[in-house]
Amino acid sequence: MKRLLLVNGPNLNLLGTREPGVYGQKTLADIEHEVETTLKENGWEFDAFQSNHEGDLIDAIHESRHESTGIIFNPGAYTHTSIALRDAIASIDVPVIEVHISNVHKRESFRHTSLISPVTWGQIVGMGTIGYTLAAQAFIDHFREENEDGEINETT
Amino acid sequence: MKRLLLVNGPNLNLLGTREPGVYGQKTLADIEHEVETTLKENGWEFDAFQSNHEGDLIDAIHESRHESTGIIFNPGAYTHTSIALRDAIASIDVPVIEVHISNVHKRESFRHTSLISPVTWGQIVGMGTIGYTLAAQAFIDHFREENEDGEINETT
Amino acid sequence: MKRLLLVNGPNLNLLGTREPGVYGQKTLADIEHEVETTLKENGWEFDAFQSNHEGDLIDAIHESRHESTGIIFNPGAYTHTSIALRDAIASIDVPVIEVHISNVHKRESFRHTSLISPVTWGQIVGMGTIGYTLAAQAFIDHFREENEDGEINETT
Amino acid sequence: MKRLLLVNGPNLNLLGTREPGVYGQKTLADIEHEVETTLKENGWEFDAFQSNHEGDLIDAIHESRHESTGIIFNPGAYTHTSIALRDAIASIDVPVIEVHISNVHKRESFRHTSLISPVTWGQIVGMGTIGYTLAAQAFIDHFREENEDGEINETT
Amino acid sequence: MKRLLLVNGPNLNLLGTREPGVYGQKTLADIEHEVETTLKENGWEFDAFQSNHEGDLIDAIHESRHESTGIIFNPGAYTHTSIALRDAIASIDVPVIEVHISNVHKRESFRHTSLISPVTWGQIVGMGTIGYTLAAQAFIDHFREENEDGEINETT
Amino acid sequence: MKRLLLVNGPNLNLLGTREPGVYGQKTLADIEHEVETTLKENGWEFDAFQSNHEGDLIDAIHESRHESTGIIFNPGAYTHTSIALRDAIASIDVPVIEVHISNVHKRESFRHTSLISPVTWGQIVGMGTIGYTLAAQAFIDHFREENEDGEINETT
Amino acid sequence: MKRLLLVNGPNLNLLGTREPGVYGQKTLADIEHEVETTLKENGWEFDAFQSNHEGDLIDAIHESRHESTGIIFNPGAYTHTSIALRDAIASIDVPVIEVHISNVHKRESFRHTSLISPVTWGQIVGMGTIGYTLAAQAFIDHFREENEDGEINETT
Amino acid sequence: MKRLLLVNGPNLNLLGTREPGVYGQKTLADIEHEVETTLKENGWEFDAFQSNHEGDLIDAIHESRHESTGIIFNPGAYTHTSIALRDAIASIDVPVIEVHISNVHKRESFRHTSLISPVTWGQIVGMGTIGYTLAAQAFIDHFREENEDGEINETT
Amino acid sequence: MKRLLLVNGPNLNLLGTREPGVYGQKTLADIEHEVETTLKENGWEFDAFQSNHEGDLIDAIHESRHESTGIIFNPGAYTHTSIALRDAIASIDVPVIEVHISNVHKRESFRHTSLISPVTWGQIVGMGTIGYTLAAQAFIDHFREENEDGEINETT
Amino acid sequence: MKRLLLVNGPNLNLLGTREPGVYGQKTLADIEHEVETTLKENGWEFDAFQSNHEGDLIDAIHESRHESTGIIFNPGAYTHTSIALRDAIASIDVPVIEVHISNVHKRESFRHTSLISPVTWGQIVGMGTIGYTLAAQAFIDHFREENEDGEINETT
Amino acid sequence: MKRLLLVNGPNLNLLGTREPGVYGQKTLADIEHEVETTLKENGWEFDAFQSNHEGDLIDAIHESRHESTGIIFNPGAYTHTSIALRDAIASIDVPVIEVHISNVHKRESFRHTSLISPVTWGQIVGMGTIGYTLAAQAFIDHFREENEDGEINETT
Amino acid sequence: MKRLLLVNGPNLNLLGTREPGVYGQKTLADIEHEVETTLKENGWEFDAFQSNHEGDLIDAIHESRHESTGIIFNPGAYTHTSIALRDAIASIDVPVIEVHISNVHKRESFRHTSLISPVTWGQIVGMGTIGYTLAAQAFIDHFREENEDGEINETT
Repeated sequence: MKRLLLVNGPNLNLLGTREPGVYGQKTLADIEHEVETTLKENGWEFDAFQSNHEGDLIDAIHESRHESTGIIFNPGAYTHTSIALRDAIASIDVPVIEVHISNVHKRESFRHTSLISPVTWGQIVGMGTIGYTLAAQAFIDHFREENEDGEINETT
Repeated sequence: MKRLLLVNGPNLNLLGTREPGVYGQKTLADIEHEVETTLKENGWEFDAFQSNHEGDLIDAIHESRHESTGIIFNPGAYTHTSIALRDAIASIDVPVIEVHISNVHKRESFRHTSLISPVTWGQIVGMGTIGYTLAAQAFIDHFREENEDGEINETT
Repeated sequence: MKRLLLVNGPNLNLLGTREPGVYGQKTLADIEHEVETTLKENGWEFDAFQSNHEGDLIDAIHESRHESTGIIFNPGAYTHTSIALRDAIASIDVPVIEVHISNVHKRESFRHTSLISPVTWGQIVGMGTIGYTLAAQAFIDHFREENEDGEINETT
Repeated sequence: MKRLLLVNGPNLNLLGTREPGVYGQKTLADIEHEVETTLKENGWEFDAFQSNHEGDLIDAIHESRHESTGIIFNPGAYTHTSIALRDAIASIDVPVIEVHISNVHKRESFRHTSLISPVTWGQIVGMGTIGYTLAAQAFIDHFREENEDGEINETT
Repeated sequence: MKRLLLVNGPNLNLLGTREPGVYGQKTLADIEHEVETTLKENGWEFDAFQSNHEGDLIDAIHESRHESTGIIFNPGAYTHTSIALRDAIASIDVPVIEVHISNVHKRESFRHTSLISPVTWGQIVGMGTIGYTLAAQAFIDHFREENEDGEINETT
Repeated sequence: MKRLLLVNGPNLNLLGTREPGVYGQKTLADIEHEVETTLKENGWEFDAFQSNHEGDLIDAIHESRHESTGIIFNPGAYTHTSIALRDAIASIDVPVIEVHISNVHKRESFRHTSLISPVTWGQIVGMGTIGYTLAAQAFIDHFREENEDGEINETT
Repeated sequence: MKRLLLVNGPNLNLLGTREPGVYGQKTLADIEHEVETTLKENGWEFDAFQSNHEGDLIDAIHESRHESTGIIFNPGAYTHTSIALRDAIASIDVPVIEVHISNVHKRESFRHTSLISPVTWGQIVGMGTIGYTLAAQAFIDHFREENEDGEINETT
Repeated sequence: MKRLLLVNGPNLNLLGTREPGVYGQKTLADIEHEVETTLKENGWEFDAFQSNHEGDLIDAIHESRHESTGIIFNPGAYTHTSIALRDAIASIDVPVIEVHISNVHKRESFRHTSLISPVTWGQIVGMGTIGYTLAAQAFIDHFREENEDGEINETT
Repeated sequence: MKRLLLVNGPNLNLLGTREPGVYGQKTLADIEHEVETTLKENGWEFDAFQSNHEGDLIDAIHESRHESTGIIFNPGAYTHTSIALRDAIASIDVPVIEVHISNVHKRESFRHTSLISPVTWGQIVGMGTIGYTLAAQAFIDHFREENEDGEINETT
Repeated sequence: MKRLLLVNGPNLNLLGTREPGVYGQKTLADIEHEVETTLKENGWEFDAFQSNHEGDLIDAIHESRHESTGIIFNPGAYTHTSIALRDAIASIDVPVIEVHISNVHKRESFRHTSLISPVTWGQIVGMGTIGYTLAAQAFIDHFREENEDGEINETT
Repeated sequence: MKRLLLVNGPNLNLLGTREPGVYGQKTLADIEHEVETTLKENGWEFDAFQSNHEGDLIDAIHESRHESTGIIFNPGAYTHTSIALRDAIASIDVPVIEVHISNVHKRESFRHTSLISPVTWGQIVGMGTIGYTLAAQAFIDHFREENEDGEINETT
Repeated sequence: MKRLLLVNGPNLNLLGTREPGVYGQKTLADIEHEVETTLKENGWEFDAFQSNHEGDLIDAIHESRHESTGIIFNPGAYTHTSIALRDAIASIDVPVIEVHISNVHKRESFRHTSLISPVTWGQIVGMGTIGYTLAAQAFIDHFREENEDGEINETT
């Protein structure tokens, strides 16, 4: 059976609990519920994890290597600073989709570079919390086509 | 009625017609057909355009401003060099999703910077040709929720 | 008889037709009419050209080399990316004044560098659409003084 | 009544008094006279100031804030090094046009960056001493149109 | 009642316990005691926290958002590397003063840049452990003046 | 008897006299009066000096070397451009605290670097005009502790 | 039968028609004739194409992929700015020799970098119009040796 | 009695447990056993620690300051990002040898810079897991020669 | 009588003697023989020199100034590091063609910059050992046309 | 029989003969003797070479390719400037260990980059002259394990 | 009659009056006396000027243009920041020798670049106050040889 | 007895033998004779050495350490590339004056940085061949004052 792990990094625990006019009404629990619903309807198992600790995120990624078919990962601010998370992803065989809720390319220049992207299967950036369900859909479609190696075409 | 424009930039006309072992069997016509199918099932109109000419792409984006509800745009190599295309997108009110078939962050460093991203609603990068249908799905979901302003949450 | 060519680059065809509160009521046709009026009052002929295509702009500059006494050129976004347009200007003997409607130095940093400026006679930047008529006036004054070589004093 | 202040920075006191073959015959007094003539014909008052001292230029700009309708400013070499002059201009409500006699973009690379430009209304660069009278004309035209807020259109 | 949280980052637990000739006799406990004394005399509550773990510091800042009136934060080496801590501060409404015991601008160049400063109310750098009590005094003075919004004047 | 010199650099003479909604009601005279009051209560003498001229500021710092116990210095825009002021401070034995009213790290990137900081005892940045009285308090506290050498602890 | 395509980019249509004292008497037609003569003597077919339009050059390279044995390409100013042309060359199997008439390394620094070179078989730079016939000779020699794979030795 | 602490950073817990064809058969336990054997034969005590958490590594280094004679440290990815670990090493008197299993200079450019190296006694890079026993041997030899100050000759 | 000097720099003595599958079967002696044959057929004299010593290469270039009509120079790794060789070439009147066997633009970025190119007549890069005979042909053709000044046209 | 070559670069001939308080008492001869002793005890042959001439070092490395099993190389200042030495090492099959006596990462920034490291098996940096015997030990251990290919594990 | 002007910039008025152990016993007056003595012995007139004001130094250089045969100029900190002083020197025909008492290349990196050097005849740096008399001697020798044009040989 | 060594680097052997209109009539022998004359008149011994070989120059500097009182060194192009020569100078106790005949700051930007300057006593740049005799005079004056330590005042 297929199994997906949703991992959210630092500060994402605060989603939806404050400034709903700005960040939307959805809490992290709401998002996790939406992704879970989409996956369950397609016969997938679902796990979720959030931490503000870089080490905990590395541990969680390590532990997923025998259990998960795919990972949806929003690394938050660690996107731009953590080579250790990059190495953790590179050291396992599970494909990862990197998700960002906001369009980071509209923000400060230090948010334009991701240390994580080169070791992921792909990225979904901007478009709000829709990105998480799109990522789940990408895994569902990809594995339905029996094309499970996560290979990426080399044309733009 | 909603209407989507799919725009593909330079060299993407060659997709699928050569080296199918590397780039996959799908031609640009196949991709356009898949996106059209997804959209039509959800009651959207569909247009497609491809050109190797920067000026033609600008003209097409200008012309869409009275006709299209959303644009899916793979700018190819112009992603990294065309401020004129960026300005064309910024000068119209139609939301744009930028799509890249390959994970550009695994490739040469000059492909890591997009002049287009800051004026789009979001980006879907890597994961092969699935990205085009995910982008179509994003528009369908977004406008179904009656949340049509394309505003983007400001948290990663 | 003196003859001036007014060339406008990408996206400037949209001037005045949308968001008049922001960009003013003047269309490109209005601007061309104003410049033409100023020139005709001083006995000059007038031509105008706009294109979103880099190649068309190069062709137009080439063709002007036997016909025009001076060129007013707003290269739009190609200001910052087109060495080919720079070479086209450098390859003809007609003096060029570069005009920008907005103060590009208040905008994104990639707009602060012009590849075109070093091969022009001068630049008029900011101050809205007044810049076009100032440029026309500069040509009229300059050639009235019989000082037709376009030489530039080397003090700031 | 409208009143214009013409400010010239370091080394511009030497204009016209030496190497007339290179820098032209016009002294700073000649330039001031030409600008004054243009303005008086249009009913404006005129003041002129030159100094090689950064502090004196700051003082003069401060003092103009209750007296002047507009300022024409050639900051000379301080263009590239004086944040203090930039702050002085930013701290007053009088619109400023920056003028350079030579095309600074043909010269050493440290002359290509202006700290002053982002706080001015616009810049006139190259085209010799014509630039000063063009700047005066810009103020005359602008205030004639009763559009006195110095706002700048945001299109190139 | 007003309440202040004093947060110290990595390696600051070693203060005063070794090399007293170099780093002074004061332990972190001494500093916390001094700040507490100053605050209590002015009717404020006081909390203190130290950790070498980035994640723990983020958690502490999150938790303070319903309890604290202000935060004094010495992020130690995380000053220069932690976007996650920056985002944590930006995501709460509590004003933060950044304190450094040494004059970091006299030290290695990588210590000259702070990722934290742009999201704080202000910084107190150098001058030894006096900086902590100055920061406490700043909060006391600021809130005494009933000017509680932490807005910052835009002149240098 | 202890004696403090308060030095303010370019454009700070305009404080409080214009745009009070933005910059606050306090004039430079008000600030000087507040600092003087704090110092006099603690038995210190007080001098104040403001100039827009870099040379005058250097002269004032030179002259203080036989008279002042400490200097509070807001170098304004010269913070980022004047090596000569840095050398003046380095050439005297009087400790200097650098003060900025606004949080310069929220502003243009050229304001993030201070040429002055490495030769000062410390910096107080942001938090409005409170910074001046905090600086005065720092000198009072420091010299009360008979620890008059201005040495700085080497831990962050 | 072997077939060679000679492609010339922007501004090269003006060769020989102006300033013959500087650029030589040879027009582009003369150069094309010389290359054709060399090739025909060795039993090769010959095609030639020139355009100032980036898109036209991409189209021409695409079309050559079923017809040409080799391409001689002088990309003019697009050498330094066109990733789209680079991708066009990389997407076909026909070997390309890049030719520049002038020694670009003696000119402006932005001409020292070629985006095209890494996807070509080799480059011939400087030495005037001789470079075109040398390139033709290189193809003739290479294919005569039955060593048709265009592989490149990895020693300098 | 001499006592050595072997510290391994993030992702090194996975050594030897997967892809033995690539990373060799040795687990982290094997490496720790080899180092322990070498040390015990020479009369040293041995401790080992591994964590993916930056804070835990800092804590471990702090705790070693009263117990260990020397530290062998492979900081993994934190080598390139952790100033906090650098400060932890700098704040204790125990000499540290930095070890990397792979030749980091053959890998991505962000792995070529170590924030740790300047505060260590030396580095052993590449040559596989032999590096750990060489480091142990270096400590044994160094302290045998009674030259215990860890001073480094200043010639390359 | 015309006379050509072929100079090869460091490591090129090993050509052909090892790894013939990679670098080809041709030794440096073979290459020298081929160039000599081409030249002798056209009535030129021929000299060859190889050294791994920068000083020897400078001496050889100095000595050629009274004897040689042209030089073919493959500077090997000194291409990227030797200003002294550049100065040696600039100090003689003999035209030089720079040759590289491999396409250096496909290799490490430090091989993309040549200190030698700006003082040569031209460069032939990539295309294997054919480059040497093309260079010889260039000299033969150039001097046959009685156009012996080595002047370079200034169009790309 | 195994055979090791010890190569020392510029200025290392002066080791031990002057300033023994700073650089230690050991001459280069002493070091060579120590390495020789270690090797002979393990049944290896030994050669040593020192030169201040880059060309001589290249020649020595070339000559070793048929004779030596491994090379210990301290390139001195050529570490940071010689691509020619890098190419020499890359062109032979003998594994090389790079040794530096001092911790170069504590010194000037231009000493932090090694052009040599990417083509070596590994580096031993700092720890004084012990590094040479550690390098000898590494070769002895490596070849004792019959794992003679010098392959390097790809984990940090 | 020949006449030399000695100009000293900011902070040089403090020479010799403080910290004689570090800066030597010589005051600026002593230096001026020594230079005057050397010049008078050779029949030259002498003037001296010192100021901390950039504007005063520009004025002094302007005024010298009708009076002085040569200028010895120690611009102090303005060496690295004043384009205005550079332009002042460039605008007069009097040759200038730049002198620095200390070896600026041993100090902070911002002191390694001189904006003044490219417009001077030469520089004498380091070697203490001897530099001033060497500069005087250079003028005396140069004008004695009747080679008064200040032309500079173009070989290093 | 005092003894001076004059060392000239690459390409300086060609001085005066060619293009006398440009480089002057003086050969290297003439310069050496002039320096020798000045020194002998003041009772100094004289040696001279020139080589195009970096290694020979290092050897000569090493050998001078027991014989020479001072060295005048024109390193030619090695000024900008040779860390090995810098280390050679740093490893001896003999003071060195660096001389350049031309004003290198007027030339290519790679000539503006000297790796040698930080380890010399001072530099004399520009002013033609006078620089060599000025350097000799500096040594004579310096040692006459019995101030033989070559210490340098730390004020500009």
